[in-house]
Amino acid sequence: MLDSFIYISDLVGVITCAISGVLVATRLRMDPFGILVLAGVTGIGGGTLRDMMMGSTPVFWITDNTYIYVIIVTAILSVFLINRIHRFPAYLLPIFDAFGLSIFTIIGAQKALMFGFSGTVAIVMGCITGVVGGMIRDILSGQIPFVLQKEVYATASILGATLYVVCDYIQLGSILSMSIAMLGTLSLRLCAIYFHLSLPVFESDK
Amino acid sequence: MLDSFIYISDLVGVITCAISGVLVATRLRMDPFGILVLAGVTGIGGGTLRDMMMGSTPVFWITDNTYIYVIIVTAILSVFLINRIHRFPAYLLPIFDAFGLSIFTIIGAQKALMFGFSGTVAIVMGCITGVVGGMIRDILSGQIPFVLQKEVYATASILGATLYVVCDYIQLGSILSMSIAMLGTLSLRLCAIYFHLSLPVFESDK
Amino acid sequence: MLDSFIYISDLVGVITCAISGVLVATRLRMDPFGILVLAGVTGIGGGTLRDMMMGSTPVFWITDNTYIYVIIVTAILSVFLINRIHRFPAYLLPIFDAFGLSIFTIIGAQKALMFGFSGTVAIVMGCITGVVGGMIRDILSGQIPFVLQKEVYATASILGATLYVVCDYIQLGSILSMSIAMLGTLSLRLCAIYFHLSLPVFESDK
Repeated sequence: MLDSFIYISDLVGVITCAISGVLVATRLRMDPFGILVLAGVTGIGGGTLRDMMMGSTPVFWITDNTYIYVIIVTAILSVFLINRIHRFPAYLLPIFDAFGLSIFTIIGAQKALMFGFSGTVAIVMGCITGVVGGMIRDILSGQIPFVLQKEVYATASILGATLYVVCDYIQLGSILSMSIAMLGTLSLRLCAIYFHLSLPVFESDK
Repeated sequence: MLDSFIYISDLVGVITCAISGVLVATRLRMDPFGILVLAGVTGIGGGTLRDMMMGSTPVFWITDNTYIYVIIVTAILSVFLINRIHRFPAYLLPIFDAFGLSIFTIIGAQKALMFGFSGTVAIVMGCITGVVGGMIRDILSGQIPFVLQKEVYATASILGATLYVVCDYIQLGSILSMSIAMLGTLSLRLCAIYFHLSLPVFESDK
Repeated sequence: MLDSFIYISDLVGVITCAISGVLVATRLRMDPFGILVLAGVTGIGGGTLRDMMMGSTPVFWITDNTYIYVIIVTAILSVFLINRIHRFPAYLLPIFDAFGLSIFTIIGAQKALMFGFSGTVAIVMGCITGVVGGMIRDILSGQIPFVLQKEVYATASILGATLYVVCDYIQLGSILSMSIAMLGTLSLRLCAIYFHLSLPVFESDK
């Protein structure tokens, strides 16, 4: 039951992230295989780095090829859909990205706790898993990464992972803890997008 | 015999990639050690990521220093040559890059099969090994990565790795399979450069 | 004694690198958690890649959370300080960066030798440990990485690591070797900053 919940959440995260990759790729007029590469990087980049850091190798998509097939199917369907619809509202990209961010943050934190690492490491690992896929997508496509822009992004990931670690600590039950934390992260990020929220900014003059 | 074939191919890939790194570095007016860094990143970046993902650590160039020496010698010779010739035709970079792409793609796929991973993983791993070195080179030097440009690049890598996996599956013999797939990848990419081939592009309006 | 020396040096490197990350982040008007992310990436990015390449996983900051706390405290203190002072001289960034480069280069080379790898590998590993954190910081923030600019940077790292390997080879004693090599690297880099030193540049016409 828990395993299924995690597995399905993870695949949903991969799908939403892959779509965000396709959206960026089509803006850049990439060819179908280039689109596939960007969808793949965004979908499994964060989890790959997480696994390499924790020493959980071969990384997850090597031992379970489902992830690769899900990305291929997602990329093909998205491209067909985009070819039909032609004009996408600009807010689709941050929304798909927000789903990926929320799910991957909690999945990453959960995996770290499951490996017996501390709550602090779980928060960092959640943040890395959530942020890195989109970060590579943005760097590859020459854009300023979402995580460096003003709207609550790293904040949502760090607070969401912290919420999960707290829920787990007070033994709320794994599925409940993960659901609360995913919804919390997602709500925070979506509110930030909708209301153009941002934390106070610290800047030096130079 | 097979081992020698793989080893020599791998070193040729490192040399051609290192030269592509030197070509980019000299355009950017880097100093000799900066050139060496860019040559190294391009030459062994892809294989390093591949080994880390597969859990084949310490990565290959740590256990066999030949790779480091080959990069140093290549960088020194290239710099001397460039200082003599002064003016390089612009098409040299994509051509050296194409050799590295072709060789590393097949080497990466072969190593994945040898580790007992599935054909699907072998194709992904081949693509990562082939593409990542040049990708880091381009990101570091502030250029749009080759893989994101229109001309058949990720396509050549993915189709080439697929060709290798098929040849291996029908048991053509390792050296023959690798040669066919390397030549196939290289031809496809060189044709794309020469004829400015590109696949149809999917784009959204925004 | 040796362990303490290495540990304290490493933490000083993390602090100076984290400060350099904060300095870049505040220029980009990032929010507090974004600043934390950039401080973290710069502070532990190089060592993380080093550990993943050597197969020393889980990476160091997973098994010793002190590094994470040090980064959090450094980021908070730096932000408060920046808010008070408002105007920072532009040369602070390269100077903090230089401290991180020097310390991490030697720590990386030392760890490689301790793992029983060759002197050549130690030099490469030192260079990677020293350079990569700042490299990711610069790429994320859309700037040309320090390592690709003209002033002696990769040069300082490579020569410093070489100096350490030589000192270690002639058995000068670990702490003495590390101190000499760190000071050598730091002096070289600071001189390069101060006198705008650069090695002769090789460039092609195109």
